[in-house]
Amino acid sequence: MTNQDDQFKKVISHAKEYGYVFQSSEIYDGLSAVYDYAQNGAELKKNIRDYWWTAMVQIHDNIVGIDSSIFMHPTTWKASGHVDAFNDPLIDNKDSKKRYRADVLIEDYCAKIETKIDKEIKKAEKRFGDAFNKEEFITTNPRVVGYYENIKTILSRMGRSLENEDLADVKALIEELEIADPVTGSRNWTEVKQFNLMFGTKLGASAESAMDLYLRPETAQGIFANFLNVQKSGRMKIPFGIAQTGKAFRNEIVARQFIFRMREFEQMEMQFFIKPGTQKEWFEHWKEERLKWHLSLGMGEENYRFHDHEKMAHYADAATDIEFKFPFGFKELEGIHSRTDFDLKQHEEYSGKKLQYFDHETKESYTPYVLETSIGLDRMFLAVFSNSLVEEELDNNTTRTVLKLPSVLAPVKAAILPLVKKDGLPEIAQQIQDDLKWDFNVVYDDKDAVGRRYRRQDANGTPFCITVDHDTLEDNTVTIRHRDTMEQTRVKIEDLSKIIKNEVDIKSWLKKM
Amino acid sequence: MTNQDDQFKKVISHAKEYGYVFQSSEIYDGLSAVYDYAQNGAELKKNIRDYWWTAMVQIHDNIVGIDSSIFMHPTTWKASGHVDAFNDPLIDNKDSKKRYRADVLIEDYCAKIETKIDKEIKKAEKRFGDAFNKEEFITTNPRVVGYYENIKTILSRMGRSLENEDLADVKALIEELEIADPVTGSRNWTEVKQFNLMFGTKLGASAESAMDLYLRPETAQGIFANFLNVQKSGRMKIPFGIAQTGKAFRNEIVARQFIFRMREFEQMEMQFFIKPGTQKEWFEHWKEERLKWHLSLGMGEENYRFHDHEKMAHYADAATDIEFKFPFGFKELEGIHSRTDFDLKQHEEYSGKKLQYFDHETKESYTPYVLETSIGLDRMFLAVFSNSLVEEELDNNTTRTVLKLPSVLAPVKAAILPLVKKDGLPEIAQQIQDDLKWDFNVVYDDKDAVGRRYRRQDANGTPFCITVDHDTLEDNTVTIRHRDTMEQTRVKIEDLSKIIKNEVDIKSWLKKM
Repeated sequence: MTNQDDQFKKVISHAKEYGYVFQSSEIYDGLSAVYDYAQNGAELKKNIRDYWWTAMVQIHDNIVGIDSSIFMHPTTWKASGHVDAFNDPLIDNKDSKKRYRADVLIEDYCAKIETKIDKEIKKAEKRFGDAFNKEEFITTNPRVVGYYENIKTILSRMGRSLENEDLADVKALIEELEIADPVTGSRNWTEVKQFNLMFGTKLGASAESAMDLYLRPETAQGIFANFLNVQKSGRMKIPFGIAQTGKAFRNEIVARQFIFRMREFEQMEMQFFIKPGTQKEWFEHWKEERLKWHLSLGMGEENYRFHDHEKMAHYADAATDIEFKFPFGFKELEGIHSRTDFDLKQHEEYSGKKLQYFDHETKESYTPYVLETSIGLDRMFLAVFSNSLVEEELDNNTTRTVLKLPSVLAPVKAAILPLVKKDGLPEIAQQIQDDLKWDFNVVYDDKDAVGRRYRRQDANGTPFCITVDHDTLEDNTVTIRHRDTMEQTRVKIEDLSKIIKNEVDIKSWLKKM
Repeated sequence: MTNQDDQFKKVISHAKEYGYVFQSSEIYDGLSAVYDYAQNGAELKKNIRDYWWTAMVQIHDNIVGIDSSIFMHPTTWKASGHVDAFNDPLIDNKDSKKRYRADVLIEDYCAKIETKIDKEIKKAEKRFGDAFNKEEFITTNPRVVGYYENIKTILSRMGRSLENEDLADVKALIEELEIADPVTGSRNWTEVKQFNLMFGTKLGASAESAMDLYLRPETAQGIFANFLNVQKSGRMKIPFGIAQTGKAFRNEIVARQFIFRMREFEQMEMQFFIKPGTQKEWFEHWKEERLKWHLSLGMGEENYRFHDHEKMAHYADAATDIEFKFPFGFKELEGIHSRTDFDLKQHEEYSGKKLQYFDHETKESYTPYVLETSIGLDRMFLAVFSNSLVEEELDNNTTRTVLKLPSVLAPVKAAILPLVKKDGLPEIAQQIQDDLKWDFNVVYDDKDAVGRRYRRQDANGTPFCITVDHDTLEDNTVTIRHRDTMEQTRVKIEDLSKIIKNEVDIKSWLKKM
């Protein structure tokens, strides 16, 4: 097991132990690639959503939020292209009856070649010691160069075949590479077929009147369908944005990596409607703005990078990902797409309704272009959670597990601890809780020695511990302990709310942007 | 059209015109009984959800929130009883091929008899004038008494037959009453069949491995399935509650009354786990608490009433509805149910896992009883919105339309209006907007005469209008106008944030409870 795997396992088990994320329907042995947010997770998720909503909707006077339904008229998904083109290429093994994504089988085959390359590198490193030049080695060693060529040939042929819908050649490639069912080793494969990733259901009860519905695979189309109603009733002037957060569903065949890729997930999307021709500058604007938002959380500039797309989806004329360093490497966290007028034009064609903007100043009508920012809430949760979980060596040669969540996102802002369960300390602690609970999520904790309680709150991600001790009886002061520095300060009880608010409110965090 | 219908139509059109609620997929001519929340509606809905969450989760140290998935393991719905018993009795017309709820056909028949009663009453009222005694008339007039008897006989026979699953008798009743297809007039009916209200879908791609899933018809089961994981990881002690808000889905055959009964809707539910034997006192406790929550919004005590159930669902030993006076009469807004240990016991049986609570003090294990509070977020939205929409006669013989939303729930807290678009007033107004936007949703409005802008903000539900005029240039004061009283006060710009916060923050509203 690699260090990465090890760290990722810790993340998953910590998420369960501390009430962040549970496997869905665990009592029924779970439901694959579906998870539930537990008592701390639900608050963290809510706080991330609020942080996004405040930044994107509340402080922008030209962006409004909506909340459109998961069910939409099925023609929506004809217009968007999802009925015809939202597919994965699947292949069945005739012996094992197991089904796989054909492209993933081929990619896994290439990953095995990469493992061989890694082995060659490690061997050479050992042999040459300090004299080893990795860059030179991998560009000159004939075996390694061959491996790289091999991978390149395979992937480019697969890419070509998929693009041309030449599924027979994808199967031929699997046969030529002698790829076997990873579970049973059988090479008895069916043809490759396209499988649509949308979940279907039926609305209405009678066979004649039942309507085939889909669970939306993205929230964006709910914004496009409401574009004109929002623009008119809200008297919006271009440029303006419509944002929403909500569930979307994809029947992923290979869903893995915990909450990174789930069958049911939540998106936070904003569609920004602009004048055609201005898309380049808005693309740059939103790249910068969105990265600033991420950086405002203080999780390390080195953990983010842009990945500009060279190959675009059919609707886009520019696209980039903001990638984050997850425990399993840099992966897409947010997408920023210049979608042109593709979506609105498609809905015009399929609905027969005009979806144009009338500019009162220039007296001209046009179909706006769209700039999209799209982030997975669950991915953002995983980014924040996994980045925050650290084991620290302390001065006294012990270690502590601490969940260094940005305090603005932490589910519980403060724990109130009476030093002992007597002498009136619990009553004072409870009074503090009663006062603070109106402003923040706080907990009362009187179980175990105070050191153990500190560790528990550290692991839970609670930014502040407030300890009531015997001095409190004298002077109405308490100690406030900071999770990350473990520093303790003596403060007046009456100042607590203000001190905590200063550190945790959205406003002061976003103003750092 | 009755006054009620008239008022309800106004509610629906106002909701569209002011960007609160749109028909879903309107460009595709809509999707029946599915709606989208528009720019103001999304904020109102969010504010209601936050108001509930703060009251139920944040300020209760023994209630935590979760966010479980819409997809659950299908056995969940066997255990909960939904697979077998969550049905509507349906009947098809063989000629028109249309499908109806058999019970609704019969209820509509009875409603027609009620119309006849109304006519008799109006006729008699006209005839007898001031001497008319309605109570006496309806208990003695032979025709009216006969009508009432008729309704009573029909409904009690239907109730009995449905309870005994005697669907043949339900059909016989329809035939005896000569009920015809309301659209075509045909009486050529099929048998009555039970139709399950859950939406189904399939998880996974291969025929062999595909799993029949349901979209959850209620959020409660997500809480029961997580009960033990939450209790253990959160170290919760009985009595404690688990709350959540989220989408649920029901394939209603007859969905109507705007957002009152939708196929996709959002619930706000709390399950309170208690010691068996204490359910009566907790039932009373939560009845009182929940009513207090509603009353804290100041929408009129006379608009609420309890409706205790005499006939209980199979899992309940006590149940009541908090009913609200909607434009179409008193209807259920929230349900409070003493669910006993039915749900946990069922999940124990179906999962084979122990779902018991271990009391560390008494060293005993038991299956807790459950007290549930369950409110429809969309219904709550409709209650707030319809109750707030009023037309007022003003002193100068004009009327104004004003949406008197509780200010804590209003989507936009303040509009900032420069009196004229020159002399530096817009710049000051924009500066005020830039300062306030960090604390609240605010808008800037400089279009039309200021009186018209006031009317627009009244109709939009904005509690405060802040007007920047020429005096502002002299003394840094503005007028703040209150939506409901139309009173205007002169205040310092620097005090605005505090003045508005005092009126709109959740804490001060909830402290009225």
